Amino acid sequence: MSMLAEKSRARPATVGALIGVGLGPGDPELVTVKAARLIGQAKIVAYFGKPGRPSHARMIAERYLARGCEEMPLLYPVTTEIPFDSPDYVSALAGFYEESAQRLGAVLSQGRDVALLCEGDPLLYGSFMHMFTRLDGRFRVEICAGVAGMSGCFAAARQPMTWGDDVLTVLPATLDEDALTERLKTTDAAVVMKLGGNFPKLRRAMARAGVLSRAIYVERGTMTGERIMRLAEKPDGAAPYFSMALVPGRGRRP
Amino acid sequence: MSMLAEKSRARPATVGALIGVGLGPGDPELVTVKAARLIGQAKIVAYFGKPGRPSHARMIAERYLARGCEEMPLLYPVTTEIPFDSPDYVSALAGFYEESAQRLGAVLSQGRDVALLCEGDPLLYGSFMHMFTRLDGRFRVEICAGVAGMSGCFAAARQPMTWGDDVLTVLPATLDEDALTERLKTTDAAVVMKLGGNFPKLRRAMARAGVLSRAIYVERGTMTGERIMRLAEKPDGAAPYFSMALVPGRGRRP
Repeated sequence: MSMLAEKSRARPATVGALIGVGLGPGDPELVTVKAARLIGQAKIVAYFGKPGRPSHARMIAERYLARGCEEMPLLYPVTTEIPFDSPDYVSALAGFYEESAQRLGAVLSQGRDVALLCEGDPLLYGSFMHMFTRLDGRFRVEICAGVAGMSGCFAAARQPMTWGDDVLTVLPATLDEDALTERLKTTDAAVVMKLGGNFPKLRRAMARAGVLSRAIYVERGTMTGERIMRLAEKPDGAAPYFSMALVPGRGRRP
Repeated sequence: MSMLAEKSRARPATVGALIGVGLGPGDPELVTVKAARLIGQAKIVAYFGKPGRPSHARMIAERYLARGCEEMPLLYPVTTEIPFDSPDYVSALAGFYEESAQRLGAVLSQGRDVALLCEGDPLLYGSFMHMFTRLDGRFRVEICAGVAGMSGCFAAARQPMTWGDDVLTVLPATLDEDALTERLKTTDAAVVMKLGGNFPKLRRAMARAGVLSRAIYVERGTMTGERIMRLAEKPDGAAPYFSMALVPGRGRRP
């Protein structure tokens, strides 16, 4: 038993547990056996989503939900209508996370457990982390690892990513072009997330870094509508939310 | 259907398929539903291991194996007896991978499928990749993503790793101290693998990079005997094979 874990596990059993359940990259069969069990046992499931759209997390988990379980959608107030780095966006999001944590906390205080469904790996760029930092310590929080979105994309694209002593860098395409170029030049393998409108800039950076010829573009990896192609051949313009760029490593290969 | 995938999927059905099955970080319950199904359907399972020791991959998969399935252990000829970067090690390993690919190929040629069990994510530093590069194209090869060892460690250590636009670097502790220091200085979050005898050097690099106070040491994450502590508090000396160092990111947090 780890020292770090004890803090939260020592809470009295009269409050409920928040269980962050990693769902994997999108294919419902890539949910772990443990996650499938936790979802099936849950009397209350919560998930993040956008108003007026089916929740992606819920779709992945659907087949594992217990009949009659209570659902608690946590709907983002704003998404792409406001620039991502504007003060308005940051402040709206902070309020939303605070309110979501309060809603979850209110249920946990009644001694009821909540399974919070998380796409991918809950601890890699996941919304779950905003609930974790707000609720851990006050309540028991358990975390079930999931297949990361990028791991799903490696398999979908059939790309061995890192060999031997390769260094892998995971970076957001939101960095400026010079920074992206430098990062791509100084790593053996790379995964680039948050492509969106940054795609043309990313391709320029890849060309400058000399990695464009081996870069792969993956859209909706492991999901319906999966598309995989050489990044150099992807038409320019924006890339959708579920897309990623891979630069496989070429390290030591006995 | 992806262009890249068609090459191998177009093979005639008379040869067998090699199925690389990711097993996750160690806890058998962190196997995916798909992997559990593939293992249960397999008439032949292969796995890497060391002579005279129970195979770790087999232990993870054991509960999912079909009764009476045929097992094909692929046993490394050398492990720690010869220095990792010596020409003898590299040449022994190359011969071993070649021979293993031939053994697998002989079975696949008979039209029989083989499930090759892979710890963690098969495409991140996995032995599976050496079989993939040798057999793909000649045979059908399918890949089932798994929870990466590092994702298991994030959850075991309860550490949100990357936020917002954080850059994550995954690096081997085999790099020299200056290179490690520079990498740790220039990233938001880090995962360090292959600790072994490199542990004291890694700790010095972390201190020089100013990240030692937030670094976490994880041993046997999600497995029996799991140990988690602040890296600064780990007694010096070597770290075992199943160990990892984490430096959580601290990015933008609405």
